Amino acid sequence: MVDIIDKKRNGGELTKEEIQTFVDGVVSGEIPDYQTSAFLMATYFKDMTDAERSELTMAMMKSGDHLDLSSIDGIKADKHSTGGVGDKTSIPLAPIVAALGIPVPMISGRGLGHTGGTLDKLEAIPGYTVEISEKDFLKQVQDVKCAIVGATGNIAPADKKIYALRDVTDTVDSIPLIASSIMSKKIASGTDALVIDVKTGSGAFMKTLDDSRELAHALVEIGKGVGMDCMAIISDMNQPLGNAIGNALEIKESIDILKGNGPKDITDLVLTLGAHMVVMAKKADNLDDARKMCEQTITDGSALKKFGDMVAAQGGDRNVVDHPEIMPQAKFKIDLPAQKAGVVSKVAADEMGIASMLLGGGRQKADDQLDYAVGIMMNKKIGDQVKEGDSLLTIYSDREDVDDIKKLLYDNIEISDHAEPVTLIHETIR
Amino acid sequence: MVDIIDKKRNGGELTKEEIQTFVDGVVSGEIPDYQTSAFLMATYFKDMTDAERSELTMAMMKSGDHLDLSSIDGIKADKHSTGGVGDKTSIPLAPIVAALGIPVPMISGRGLGHTGGTLDKLEAIPGYTVEISEKDFLKQVQDVKCAIVGATGNIAPADKKIYALRDVTDTVDSIPLIASSIMSKKIASGTDALVIDVKTGSGAFMKTLDDSRELAHALVEIGKGVGMDCMAIISDMNQPLGNAIGNALEIKESIDILKGNGPKDITDLVLTLGAHMVVMAKKADNLDDARKMCEQTITDGSALKKFGDMVAAQGGDRNVVDHPEIMPQAKFKIDLPAQKAGVVSKVAADEMGIASMLLGGGRQKADDQLDYAVGIMMNKKIGDQVKEGDSLLTIYSDREDVDDIKKLLYDNIEISDHAEPVTLIHETIR
Repeated sequence: MVDIIDKKRNGGELTKEEIQTFVDGVVSGEIPDYQTSAFLMATYFKDMTDAERSELTMAMMKSGDHLDLSSIDGIKADKHSTGGVGDKTSIPLAPIVAALGIPVPMISGRGLGHTGGTLDKLEAIPGYTVEISEKDFLKQVQDVKCAIVGATGNIAPADKKIYALRDVTDTVDSIPLIASSIMSKKIASGTDALVIDVKTGSGAFMKTLDDSRELAHALVEIGKGVGMDCMAIISDMNQPLGNAIGNALEIKESIDILKGNGPKDITDLVLTLGAHMVVMAKKADNLDDARKMCEQTITDGSALKKFGDMVAAQGGDRNVVDHPEIMPQAKFKIDLPAQKAGVVSKVAADEMGIASMLLGGGRQKADDQLDYAVGIMMNKKIGDQVKEGDSLLTIYSDREDVDDIKKLLYDNIEISDHAEPVTLIHETIR
Repeated sequence: MVDIIDKKRNGGELTKEEIQTFVDGVVSGEIPDYQTSAFLMATYFKDMTDAERSELTMAMMKSGDHLDLSSIDGIKADKHSTGGVGDKTSIPLAPIVAALGIPVPMISGRGLGHTGGTLDKLEAIPGYTVEISEKDFLKQVQDVKCAIVGATGNIAPADKKIYALRDVTDTVDSIPLIASSIMSKKIASGTDALVIDVKTGSGAFMKTLDDSRELAHALVEIGKGVGMDCMAIISDMNQPLGNAIGNALEIKESIDILKGNGPKDITDLVLTLGAHMVVMAKKADNLDDARKMCEQTITDGSALKKFGDMVAAQGGDRNVVDHPEIMPQAKFKIDLPAQKAGVVSKVAADEMGIASMLLGGGRQKADDQLDYAVGIMMNKKIGDQVKEGDSLLTIYSDREDVDDIKKLLYDNIEISDHAEPVTLIHETIR
């Protein structure tokens, strides 16, 4: 192992066998943590070639279970996002694409950052369960065409061990380590096609467009290297996506999107991602046609019905579609009035997420219980004109005194005489 | 600790408090090895400022015992070498300087590389013990003026832990880590003045003059930073130093030097180092006078007598001075004849050391027993003219068949029509 560390430290390219030795040793425990962490830090500084990244991804993927989706007819399409505040994209996206007959087998996660993850949000729906057996998952994707569930089985245990060490040795933000972690799990999930939504901006893991582009390229190259149909877009995460932040609030907004009443930005993003999935699943020849097909599922109600079907299949109450008030409701709705007139020029995504977490909508520690009802509804976003006293946002809270939250929010929303225009989708990477 | 790793990884300068937190955590075990090794690898890549190096050195020094030499009269002077093949410099140097009334309290080490260390060599003398109590050590330096002993007590335990991790995480060759390791122990040993002999060349830890210069500067800066009178020379280690490699052989050569019959190169180095120590101890105003004083101790026999006194004080048989044959003697002396005529152009120091180790003169594993009798006597060195059949060197062995050793030696000695001149002392660094 010292030789492998040395080769990486001195900028050499590791062979498939050397990477396999490393991953095997990590999983078996034969390589002590102190050598693994020295290797991770050397990798942080010296990066990896495309070949090394692919080999690392495959070795981590093969360290655990691999889902076999071959019993499901058609080209299976999935989406992955690097995560951001207000990002409930998967929830309307899966039924839209599934309504076009494309199987969408989504294995999703819980919140790691400030706000709840996709699974947490879905659990705001009474009865909805994300823990279903592999057999039921396969059957649901075959019959309903979509499912959004938690991981079953032992997926990429090498990644679990390595991720835990990265977290405590300051080696999280390394492109080859991030990319192999994401892709080892996605490849293990067995999808044929994958659209990756790499977030960029102050509320994203990757703060700059350059870093986001590098990560997007790394992810796509790894996917292609193992024969997966794979592409990425880079989308904005300087302000929250859509208007809703908070678990039940985001389900409500997802339903609005499926009814054609969603906020413009997230609706646009959902349709863009959906169009790519439709083309990759060979249900359309070009993106324009594909996007129109996705729009049609909203107009004709088939996507909304598909959402209800998915909710029902996973034990949830499909009445949520017309009666979102069956989800937990906050006791207090408190507006945040603009303190002066002007144009909203900044809405810091991260801090909006932290505010929602502090209200109880996200976890500070892994075992925190979530309050599904609370959160924030943005009433104004970047570029919107406001008069003094206009409501910038509404705080949904179970406590009446939210002065601390108000201060945090005021500190992170700026009103000026001018705002830079927001670009939602920066680039497409194949 | 993640914050400290992060600061170093991103090239920041650690504060005294951060470095103290790191060293305290390493010693107490509160910082797990995997974080220490990530920190060490980040330090390998990002280096440390002079201030950080000093703070790290002092924190490691203070992690253990500190020898108080204040009971000894006068300015105490010591020498440290970064080590090389045939380097028995300390053994004649200590009595030469001590013969001028300067206390020389040398705490030395055992062989870590191919050949025995200074303590191993001295143990070739019947009865000589390197393990003496701190009280006896102080008394001997006060009375005899010199002692060469092993470390007593708990010197720099932080260095012990960190060094063990560096060895298995490929972070040995980092200037701030090397320098703090050396200097923490030297500062703990309590000397007032220190001359450091940094070796450079193929047989040294630092292969290039640039690297050697950087290490020398680092060591001197750390010493000065804590108020120690400290300087360094950079001396050549492309070929073995002197003619003798092997424990008893090197004691014999040390005695020859003290009698004025030593090889020119090592005699020159001993006198150079000695002159610096004499000036630092304020027994002479300039190096020329100091060197003449050192030469005088050889001419008048006072250095040789001092050596006998030191050997006797540490339980050894001082008859070794006139009867080196009381040390273990090898059964076989086998010459290595030149295979062609020409000029010796290369004598690879490392491989000469490995040959001596393979004969039994050095350790392959930490618990190997040494054979004091065996080794190599160089009869020709770089620049010497040879005729075909001339003895290049003599192998001292306890086994008759040394074909493997001969092959190794032939492979690493070159005879050409021309040799580059050898510079023994490259630079002086204050």
